[in-house]
Amino acid sequence: MKLASLKNGSRDGRLVVVSRDLTRYTDASFLVPTLQAALDNWARLAPHLEAMAESLETGAVPSVRFHEHDAHSPLPRAYQWADGSAYVNHVELVRRARGAKMPESFWTEPLMYQGGSDAFLPPRDAIVMADEAWGIDLEAEVAVIVDDVPMGATVDEARSAIRLVMLVNDVSLRGLIPAELEKGFGFFQSKPSSAFSPVAVTPDELGDAWDGGRVRLPLSVELNGKPFGRADAGVDMTFDFPQLIAHAAKTRPLGAGAIIGSGTVSNKLDGGPGRPIAAGGVGYSCIAEQRMVEAIEAGAAKTPFLRFGDTVRIEMKDRSGHSIFGAIEQTVRRAGEQEGQ
Amino acid sequence: MKLASLKNGSRDGRLVVVSRDLTRYTDASFLVPTLQAALDNWARLAPHLEAMAESLETGAVPSVRFHEHDAHSPLPRAYQWADGSAYVNHVELVRRARGAKMPESFWTEPLMYQGGSDAFLPPRDAIVMADEAWGIDLEAEVAVIVDDVPMGATVDEARSAIRLVMLVNDVSLRGLIPAELEKGFGFFQSKPSSAFSPVAVTPDELGDAWDGGRVRLPLSVELNGKPFGRADAGVDMTFDFPQLIAHAAKTRPLGAGAIIGSGTVSNKLDGGPGRPIAAGGVGYSCIAEQRMVEAIEAGAAKTPFLRFGDTVRIEMKDRSGHSIFGAIEQTVRRAGEQEGQ
Repeated sequence: MKLASLKNGSRDGRLVVVSRDLTRYTDASFLVPTLQAALDNWARLAPHLEAMAESLETGAVPSVRFHEHDAHSPLPRAYQWADGSAYVNHVELVRRARGAKMPESFWTEPLMYQGGSDAFLPPRDAIVMADEAWGIDLEAEVAVIVDDVPMGATVDEARSAIRLVMLVNDVSLRGLIPAELEKGFGFFQSKPSSAFSPVAVTPDELGDAWDGGRVRLPLSVELNGKPFGRADAGVDMTFDFPQLIAHAAKTRPLGAGAIIGSGTVSNKLDGGPGRPIAAGGVGYSCIAEQRMVEAIEAGAAKTPFLRFGDTVRIEMKDRSGHSIFGAIEQTVRRAGEQEGQ
Repeated sequence: MKLASLKNGSRDGRLVVVSRDLTRYTDASFLVPTLQAALDNWARLAPHLEAMAESLETGAVPSVRFHEHDAHSPLPRAYQWADGSAYVNHVELVRRARGAKMPESFWTEPLMYQGGSDAFLPPRDAIVMADEAWGIDLEAEVAVIVDDVPMGATVDEARSAIRLVMLVNDVSLRGLIPAELEKGFGFFQSKPSSAFSPVAVTPDELGDAWDGGRVRLPLSVELNGKPFGRADAGVDMTFDFPQLIAHAAKTRPLGAGAIIGSGTVSNKLDGGPGRPIAAGGVGYSCIAEQRMVEAIEAGAAKTPFLRFGDTVRIEMKDRSGHSIFGAIEQTVRRAGEQEGQ
């Protein structure tokens, strides 16, 4: 089943069921108004939503053309957004670029940051920032939405709580990160609003590309229409989603609708540190990583961070080439300027 | 006006208006079911809630006895919980105890961490933890709930967005903090669920104890029935709430219902480092601070962190001795054990 929250002027959007091929939707809001409300009572409501999804496929319910740009993030706001760094290669590269050694424990204990979740961006809306010098970067990731997870849940309990899968652009302000991390309390201003894919899907929609903990498909990232990343989300994911969820729930429960992210997808390939797509590699899921590789190999980064007017597109296709989640496509704009300026 | 969310088996509780003296309440859920729903549409709904509060005071509406232990946290879950460290004295003491110098910038740039907000504790429920060795500590704080705050809001815009004030116990796991902060991404497991006071109040309820940015009253903390802290929340608050809110909104908007915390209330008094109440001081709003002062003065901390069975009580009284927000009163319990064991 595929679900979306259409923009309707409300804070949480209107829940719809979207067809497998993303071309049509049927209204679900008469059953349950919002995705959060569905997650609050998933065991009771999911079977009805699944039935609607089946009826939509067979044309047994009224349906309307689905436009990805009408969708908000599946949860336009959420109660929890915890983002792991499951692709440890990414972390190791960042540290290596600045000459720091990564602690060995990073291979056995997940790294995770507490994100802000009160104001996500819609997947086709602009990334509005006041200053290019903040070092605006994308981070292409996979995320799951979970049901209630009790404190101290095991990895297996965590696995059974996964309800939906989606993509994320975890926008990062590289220029603000060093000073903020130096203060010792983690990210705040350096992690502004994230955007999620137009559609969230149940794991069964991924078929055998879902191994119970990872999505074994390449994550496509384009920068200004050119291929930038094709890293496989199933490769080099040191901690899978159940492990990340159990980590998040060690000292607290997670509420239904909590979002757990994978961190920037990153493939080490043959020993690393990775190559651009143009050079035969799988490229990168954030600009910082490409800059790190440049710094390691050529002594200095040359790829700039995002500039006003730049466009990022993040998408994942199944093995027959069909978009699973729809695309996140965002243009960076200067605060105070209208779209089209 | 004073508002509470009564436990009713739902995730968000039932909105009620509470009398100024905290003895009675009248149902508000026929108008708007939850506090978050009220905050989502505050401009339209607040006047109606204010009218109900006035009617409650004059006995013009039906009312029922209010019991603080029936209340959930005003927002049992929220979309944003950002906690500042506005009492820089607290931060300086922590650093000094471990021999580290605090950067000068901490006096001019607020320190803030992104908290988790999907599963707050009710104010009279136990703090359930698996292990005493995690170093369970309280942190008594003041917090505000804001309306929508646009990205880049000024301090004055931030000030005008403050809707409600409440107290917090920002439970902290001191034993997990060093390893977690060393990883560089801030708190996660070391900041489990927080609890908020039974009642949230509009700033006007504070009279001249509200100066537009700070609550100028002592915050009472008791540990196992004995006075532990009486630090004044209006003293040594280096950054007031409007400054903290503007800091939080620098690179993102804040959604209606976002909670911004003050950080542990801490008074420097005559040059510091502070004295226990028994020694004529104002005591502390967390155990860690008392331990730091012990370490500074006697070479070693002697006050233990919270143990299973310990009870913490946090309250604030007005100048005539009446509780403003009701009391947070929580006993620490071992996970898996039932209350009363």
